[in-house]
Amino acid sequence: MTVLTTAEQLEARLRQIGRERYHSNHPFHKLLHNGKLNRGQIQAWALNRYYYQSRIPMKDAALMSRISDPALRREWSQRVIDHDGTREGQGGIARWLFMCIDLGLDRDYVMSEEGILAGTKFAVDAYVRFVHERTLSEAIASSLTELFAPSIIGERLAGMLANYDFISRETLSYFDARLTQAPRDAAFALDYVKTHARTPEERKAVADALIFKCDVLWSQLDALHFAYVAPGNIPPGAFTPKDPR
Amino acid sequence: MTVLTTAEQLEARLRQIGRERYHSNHPFHKLLHNGKLNRGQIQAWALNRYYYQSRIPMKDAALMSRISDPALRREWSQRVIDHDGTREGQGGIARWLFMCIDLGLDRDYVMSEEGILAGTKFAVDAYVRFVHERTLSEAIASSLTELFAPSIIGERLAGMLANYDFISRETLSYFDARLTQAPRDAAFALDYVKTHARTPEERKAVADALIFKCDVLWSQLDALHFAYVAPGNIPPGAFTPKDPR
Repeated sequence: MTVLTTAEQLEARLRQIGRERYHSNHPFHKLLHNGKLNRGQIQAWALNRYYYQSRIPMKDAALMSRISDPALRREWSQRVIDHDGTREGQGGIARWLFMCIDLGLDRDYVMSEEGILAGTKFAVDAYVRFVHERTLSEAIASSLTELFAPSIIGERLAGMLANYDFISRETLSYFDARLTQAPRDAAFALDYVKTHARTPEERKAVADALIFKCDVLWSQLDALHFAYVAPGNIPPGAFTPKDPR
Repeated sequence: MTVLTTAEQLEARLRQIGRERYHSNHPFHKLLHNGKLNRGQIQAWALNRYYYQSRIPMKDAALMSRISDPALRREWSQRVIDHDGTREGQGGIARWLFMCIDLGLDRDYVMSEEGILAGTKFAVDAYVRFVHERTLSEAIASSLTELFAPSIIGERLAGMLANYDFISRETLSYFDARLTQAPRDAAFALDYVKTHARTPEERKAVADALIFKCDVLWSQLDALHFAYVAPGNIPPGAFTPKDPR
């Protein structure tokens, strides 16, 4: 591994990690975007990803709980507001829940968190824990998958709208907001780690934090793919689609 | 769910959970025991399970760190000794490492923990964390998968010896010791939770802890099965068998 002696080398390394490890490369996303899944499989994706969405503001609050600078905390708090909204029914989590219901899932079932794959919970909980335990630069770096989000969201919106007659632009409204939020958040976090990781060791820790986060996303799709793409592999207790149409 | 009003009902519920959710039911184990895997796939199994083995004494130490009764701590410390041995080269971890090397893996590579699936790490780390955070009865209950270990170990020893010419009784010596250790440990833990979980709520928490632990084991096999049974699904950075023979 090359020693990262400058902030520009760090940025290049982070972008390389995204090209190699971001979950846009996962076979499940190719199936999802290319119309190869049925409604029950897409329900399983939305349900499991709901657990991830639900933990993101908890992760961001954990990060804020470790920031002593009011300006940085204020900046970061926008992420919590984006997910939680400023009143009932608004914000990213509400939009994700709307998508789940629009796909035919029961609201109370989704919110109960029953039926979520253990693999999803272990990966997401590991992410929240990481942000509690690591340095501030590593915790902020773990959000940098947002750098690569706009391209996958664009591909997802086009692919899912074209390929599934039960999905409308409204179903996918969560992603519209993310198209502007993600680049703003990623630019801030990238600038932060480029400025604050000052030694090769700190830059390596930042790069490793992004690898960890890519693993968190990838591992969720591994669990989803194994359970729902081929028949017979749904773990005991996990969501079982009623509606495979 | 039936309310658990007696210790006997709790034991019956725990045994039911084992029948329904213990990883002996996982399709990967059927492949492993029935001679359907190649050497590279068995290497992947041993390598990933090494990470689990390596964390078990850390889990047990976490549990001991929360026990104020010297007698109970003394009882529990036997588990750490069983895994760590009383000198270099002895104990369960050393025996597991011997198996990995006997299967053709490099000792330093195994011990580096590189190449372990993210799904393995997230599940195992969730187990260690669970024992840190939950009540003592729940932490002890999460060890109760040992109740069901002897049957799977018997099946594994017979199946692997019969079906793979590169595996000898010596390769599998780890499991010989477990055949006596697991029942002793399980009997103690079962007696503990039957005595100390005194309300229906506490008994339900104990049963849920065993479900959690079954999920920890099952989810590891999900990750392993997805990555190594069908081609093309090994996640970025994970172990890639060189030797599929």
